[in-house]
Amino acid sequence: MRLFQERGYDRTTMRAIAQEAGVSVGNAYYYFAGKEHLIQGFYDRIAAEHREAVREVLARETGLQARLAGVLKAWLDIATPYHEFAVQFFKNAADPDSPLSPFSPESEHARVEAVSVHKEVLYGARTRVPAELREVLPELMWLAQMGLVLYWVFDRTEGRERSYRLAERGARLTARGVSLARFRALRPLVLDVHELFTDFLPGMTKALPDPSARARGRA
Amino acid sequence: MRLFQERGYDRTTMRAIAQEAGVSVGNAYYYFAGKEHLIQGFYDRIAAEHREAVREVLARETGLQARLAGVLKAWLDIATPYHEFAVQFFKNAADPDSPLSPFSPESEHARVEAVSVHKEVLYGARTRVPAELREVLPELMWLAQMGLVLYWVFDRTEGRERSYRLAERGARLTARGVSLARFRALRPLVLDVHELFTDFLPGMTKALPDPSARARGRA
Repeated sequence: MRLFQERGYDRTTMRAIAQEAGVSVGNAYYYFAGKEHLIQGFYDRIAAEHREAVREVLARETGLQARLAGVLKAWLDIATPYHEFAVQFFKNAADPDSPLSPFSPESEHARVEAVSVHKEVLYGARTRVPAELREVLPELMWLAQMGLVLYWVFDRTEGRERSYRLAERGARLTARGVSLARFRALRPLVLDVHELFTDFLPGMTKALPDPSARARGRA
Repeated sequence: MRLFQERGYDRTTMRAIAQEAGVSVGNAYYYFAGKEHLIQGFYDRIAAEHREAVREVLARETGLQARLAGVLKAWLDIATPYHEFAVQFFKNAADPDSPLSPFSPESEHARVEAVSVHKEVLYGARTRVPAELREVLPELMWLAQMGLVLYWVFDRTEGRERSYRLAERGARLTARGVSLARFRALRPLVLDVHELFTDFLPGMTKALPDPSARARGRA
């Protein structure tokens, strides 16, 4: 991570990483197929640190808004040292077909971890959640968190204060949205939104196959 | 645009542009304060071409879904020649504080044009829209279009077929969402979502001031 932060992701080679770690290049490749796999290790570490950091707020708060705000702000706290790296790293991770994208199959482990935090946020809150939305809401909450991350990457305010305010506001909005799920007429829309994301994002379970792999001819 | 496409945005200088256009560098700067202003001209041209291209579909279709799908697909058609450029240009435009961002004050002219197309889409459809949502929905529809643009930038399928399918699906989802606006309980949420975007995106009218400009000290 220190090399990545100093030289930038693009200019850091596996050779330099191996040298820095005092192992042979062959040895480095034995443990990691490439530098994108080192980033996956970094994602996993952030996810584990985050899970640890949210324990206290999730044990204390019972309101959905407070639980979600606490979880989002804990993420911003943990990510603070990596902000500069994130800015230059962003163009790699923004590509949903890159292994570095949070939506990639390679990022699945970190993603499942992160979604499971949102399950805890939702299931442990006193808000009642209709059964048909129990599975999809945590994934949508995680997607909203990815929106916050995108905002944070470009946030130049001191202490990323705007991102913290967005976390607060986003949590309030989400809590209101979830409370509206008591209206049955709304539920199909939530399911549709979720289906749209899972159909079009590559790492999601049901991502549509690449149509160019099939015979051509749009109807 | 040819120079930008050949050399990339970062590596194209005003000097090279002036030379190519057969004018002096001083003369080039007389008309354009910098290359980011040339991009604004490009945005304006795309917006004007788009407005022209959607005329026919907006004259023919009365259903919101068909109108919106037609408008989104027309944009994908028009943007086709610029896809490669968009991929490398993306990292400049993705920063909401860059003048090249679709949310920047500099992009206001192109943005107002684009939002006005969505006003036509909505107001000319047979769907009834509650008065309190008339102003905010076209801006949210434009935001959704920006989501499609982001998806398109990274779409590597032949003929950007996935983006066309996302346009169709997004239009269907939007039409369903708008039809739910008949439920009064839902309207405050739509207004909240809109307020969140206008508060946090820099080019939007009410963007919050940078808090670091004020005295420090978070409560």
